[in-house]
Amino acid sequence: MKTMKIIITAGGISEKIDGVRKITNSGTGRLGSLTAEELVRRGGDRIEKIYYVCAPGSAVPRADAEVIPVQGAEEANTVLERLLTRENIGAVIHSMAVSDYAVDRVTTAENLAGFLADRLSSADRQEFRSTRALAEFLLECINRNDRLLDRSRKVSSELDHMLLMMRRTPKLIGLVKTLRPSAVLVGFKLLKGVDRQTLLNAGHEVMKKNSCDLVLANDQTEISGDRHVGYLLSPDGSFERYETKAEISAGIAGRVLSLLEKRERQ
Amino acid sequence: MKTMKIIITAGGISEKIDGVRKITNSGTGRLGSLTAEELVRRGGDRIEKIYYVCAPGSAVPRADAEVIPVQGAEEANTVLERLLTRENIGAVIHSMAVSDYAVDRVTTAENLAGFLADRLSSADRQEFRSTRALAEFLLECINRNDRLLDRSRKVSSELDHMLLMMRRTPKLIGLVKTLRPSAVLVGFKLLKGVDRQTLLNAGHEVMKKNSCDLVLANDQTEISGDRHVGYLLSPDGSFERYETKAEISAGIAGRVLSLLEKRERQ
Repeated sequence: MKTMKIIITAGGISEKIDGVRKITNSGTGRLGSLTAEELVRRGGDRIEKIYYVCAPGSAVPRADAEVIPVQGAEEANTVLERLLTRENIGAVIHSMAVSDYAVDRVTTAENLAGFLADRLSSADRQEFRSTRALAEFLLECINRNDRLLDRSRKVSSELDHMLLMMRRTPKLIGLVKTLRPSAVLVGFKLLKGVDRQTLLNAGHEVMKKNSCDLVLANDQTEISGDRHVGYLLSPDGSFERYETKAEISAGIAGRVLSLLEKRERQ
Repeated sequence: MKTMKIIITAGGISEKIDGVRKITNSGTGRLGSLTAEELVRRGGDRIEKIYYVCAPGSAVPRADAEVIPVQGAEEANTVLERLLTRENIGAVIHSMAVSDYAVDRVTTAENLAGFLADRLSSADRQEFRSTRALAEFLLECINRNDRLLDRSRKVSSELDHMLLMMRRTPKLIGLVKTLRPSAVLVGFKLLKGVDRQTLLNAGHEVMKKNSCDLVLANDQTEISGDRHVGYLLSPDGSFERYETKAEISAGIAGRVLSLLEKRERQ
């Protein structure tokens, strides 16, 4: 019987700087799309629906899936929230590379220096008894700087010292167990140029923090074309090592389906 | 006789923030690849070589062309410089969307505030006779801030106030007439959400500044899928209006080939 509903997030999501520029995370969506295909191949008779939430332009599965393109982490957050509350989601495979930061404000070093100078000049110098008090005052001023550039169109190409002030984006993975504690959750951790133990530790940290059932830990330097080294970590500390996207997606699909079956039997 | 050598630059180039994050310009390379195909279709018997310098992952022409992928504006600059000095380049069609800014340094508001506080505390307060003098001092300090984050790997996802300090990238288009004054040069100007006259004026400015023979002026809001409104401007102030990528690439290819023929006859 087709009862399982699964969300796969995939691709490298981007955040706007201005009307034409954006910040993107590496990510093609290939691993996510292969995982969707593997799920259908192995469990198509039990899967009711796959929601494939992805960055525009990502690879999409050659399998039956509802493709939902999203612009930016905040839109991805909205879509996940809606699906997790309205649909009986059994599993979430969160392979999307989300920008940890979105551009909050765009300014220049000149604008910021002018703003800080005005604030310092009008402040009571007695306030700054210590360098630390001065640093705190300056930090507050930096974060309140209102001499900003208009980001709705294209910011001028001629600025000598453009400054991008970033803010953290919502952590999508945190939504899953909060909104649907019973769902199987596969997290992903991507680092670059670290040793294996550091990578495995970071993966386990993601697992603990977000109550994942599985975490795929991988290192950017070990990904090129079809070669893709990945460690699929279990909560008991064991892991499987894979060497290609095909192996990784087969490993994830197999484990997710068996976890889903176990939960359905309970 | 096959005598013409043509460079086409295409796609949206990206600049690294750190090991996994990057800033990209919108641009798929479709217009550049179509233009290469049109050039071969109309002038294949006279074209010796097309160099197609593009962002990795861009669309590439289904026609004989040497594809040269480049990472970042600085690498594109090196490649263009080499081609323009070593090869007898007859024309350059510069449709590549280059980031005007690369990330120079990554810091946090906390780091910057601490650095500024230290500098202010150790400076002679007498120096700052005016708010303007103070602003100049602060500007210099902001640009010299050395409390930076390590960008070679992945910068932490947990920073509250990340700051990206940008620097301008080299203007690639400026190279062309400097290194090869006889080359036919097609410039591109992309704006977003402006009226037609503003767009045309901006296009003519690019033309004057870089001694272009043609400029394609277009607005991001008038580009979606195959619909692509573009104005191909001539130095005499006249222009052709096109409505699709196919029309634009045919227009550019035709004009470039006839300009190249005129110059060869001279």
